[in-house]
Amino acid sequence: MRNPVALFLCLGALLAPANARAQQAEVPDAMPNNIPYGPTVTADRAAEIVEAVMAAGRMGARDWKLAIAVVDPHGDLVYFYKMDDTQYGSTTIAVNKARSAARMRRPTQVFSELMQTTAGSFAPTLGPDVVASPGGVPLIENGRLIGGIGCSGASGAQDHVACTAGANVLR
Amino acid sequence: MRNPVALFLCLGALLAPANARAQQAEVPDAMPNNIPYGPTVTADRAAEIVEAVMAAGRMGARDWKLAIAVVDPHGDLVYFYKMDDTQYGSTTIAVNKARSAARMRRPTQVFSELMQTTAGSFAPTLGPDVVASPGGVPLIENGRLIGGIGCSGASGAQDHVACTAGANVLR
Amino acid sequence: MRNPVALFLCLGALLAPANARAQQAEVPDAMPNNIPYGPTVTADRAAEIVEAVMAAGRMGARDWKLAIAVVDPHGDLVYFYKMDDTQYGSTTIAVNKARSAARMRRPTQVFSELMQTTAGSFAPTLGPDVVASPGGVPLIENGRLIGGIGCSGASGAQDHVACTAGANVLR
Amino acid sequence: MRNPVALFLCLGALLAPANARAQQAEVPDAMPNNIPYGPTVTADRAAEIVEAVMAAGRMGARDWKLAIAVVDPHGDLVYFYKMDDTQYGSTTIAVNKARSAARMRRPTQVFSELMQTTAGSFAPTLGPDVVASPGGVPLIENGRLIGGIGCSGASGAQDHVACTAGANVLR
Repeated sequence: MRNPVALFLCLGALLAPANARAQQAEVPDAMPNNIPYGPTVTADRAAEIVEAVMAAGRMGARDWKLAIAVVDPHGDLVYFYKMDDTQYGSTTIAVNKARSAARMRRPTQVFSELMQTTAGSFAPTLGPDVVASPGGVPLIENGRLIGGIGCSGASGAQDHVACTAGANVLR
Repeated sequence: MRNPVALFLCLGALLAPANARAQQAEVPDAMPNNIPYGPTVTADRAAEIVEAVMAAGRMGARDWKLAIAVVDPHGDLVYFYKMDDTQYGSTTIAVNKARSAARMRRPTQVFSELMQTTAGSFAPTLGPDVVASPGGVPLIENGRLIGGIGCSGASGAQDHVACTAGANVLR
Repeated sequence: MRNPVALFLCLGALLAPANARAQQAEVPDAMPNNIPYGPTVTADRAAEIVEAVMAAGRMGARDWKLAIAVVDPHGDLVYFYKMDDTQYGSTTIAVNKARSAARMRRPTQVFSELMQTTAGSFAPTLGPDVVASPGGVPLIENGRLIGGIGCSGASGAQDHVACTAGANVLR
Repeated sequence: MRNPVALFLCLGALLAPANARAQQAEVPDAMPNNIPYGPTVTADRAAEIVEAVMAAGRMGARDWKLAIAVVDPHGDLVYFYKMDDTQYGSTTIAVNKARSAARMRRPTQVFSELMQTTAGSFAPTLGPDVVASPGGVPLIENGRLIGGIGCSGASGAQDHVACTAGANVLR
């Protein structure tokens, strides 16, 4: 058993009741992870998406300072915009969230909830492609994943709201 | 079993209490993270700050061996001092704590407490800008963040006391 | 042969021309490196700068595919735009060039020329802050360095032309 | 021949005339590399050394902006001081030079000269412990290497002068 992840999986299988797989749909997974990859989001589309994120971050009394990253399906950067006075640490965090959303084909909120709902028994040790903090969302168009968007700078819940507004441009 | 994450998700669904989502937004944030960035702490100021840390580490019966790092608001090193016989690993840890405090605009103790108060459901996966161990504190002057200070070598609580003494030079 | 470097040194002594040392200090430094740092380029300004780069890349018969990065004086990303169909490797190269230009306060072309004019005797070994390829240029406004811009995707000379067009927006 | 360095050494041996080793003393190696390691430079000593570097950088009409790093014999940071307005890239470069000087037991100028005197045939690919730029000098006391000092921010020649002034505190 040279692979520690394999051990984790075995443990999970032992603890899971027989109907574990049947309950899979109840998992707070807002988006299936088997969506096929499509062409890369274009730069122009990415710019529109980021515009929508910024509008969401400034709506009403909101004054969220956000770093916003759009990546292609592989996690390579396509577009990045950091609002003035956003905390510097959000530069890399936004990129990490976008990459996780694209490469894992799920909102990063899924991993964050997983940690909370399992009372700490899930801690992602799978590397930089699994960020367990809300604010990364896949970009879906015509039933295909064409990239990911990541936001950082506000609270996790706010980051999620903001980048979801961006992803909704495509729907 | 082609998708290892799916099994994780199954497990999570089984263990989840009903109010898991409701708890998500409450985070013990001891310091607002929207403090504006200001000019970089000068080298002379940094030297004073480190003096205060060393005094705190030697106060009374204390004999804390500390590595002490002062960084600018971006996390770039400005000043560093390692007391003789401090453990070598503290060299990089002190720098990492200082960088996290500056780039995330919070004491790193916040991230450490978050892990404890959420029964392990928070684990930092956001990259090297989020160190979840006490001992990193933002440097604030005139309502602006001008850098960060990080200490390592004693216990986490002691590291926090020491670098807070340094940060208080500016207040 | 317990010391491999000693042999290198032997070889060096045999091949050395008499005036080798005299040549050491003459470096083609196209821009002084003591320009003071100023405030960070704003996101809106960065967007204008990138617009100018794109216009330069599409001028006349040009059809340069570019990744374009704007960073602050410390090298932290402010704005990034990758034209469709740009080679993926240019994503990181553009960021690295921008960071080098900002952190070393020189166009990266200086380091590239240095390698050529010294018959290969300069090879950057100073780490990721010294990229020896044209296409990174400091952003100067009112006599202060407020960031850096990096381009990658075309030839090195073209990358330099493109990002210089961007930097000239500020002058 | 799985080790590329080994190939380089073979090549060197083939090109070297029979008396290559005898000529070793003519190599511009100001300091033998077989000096034994001693105890780590103390923090107080490091502070004195850095004081001397700063005095050298401000002597007469000089106004060198320097980042100054002192490391122990292993290259771990002991003391660091960055003068205000030094280029940010020098932060890491100073540390790299100090580490190279300590871990290779030579001034980094040796590697820089080696590149020039061999008409480019030497390019260090040995990793981050071999910086080929002047400005790193071993710290010697009582015939033992107790650390390294690295300077960056001025020209390479000036960086060397400055950190040599620091190293001379010990003699």
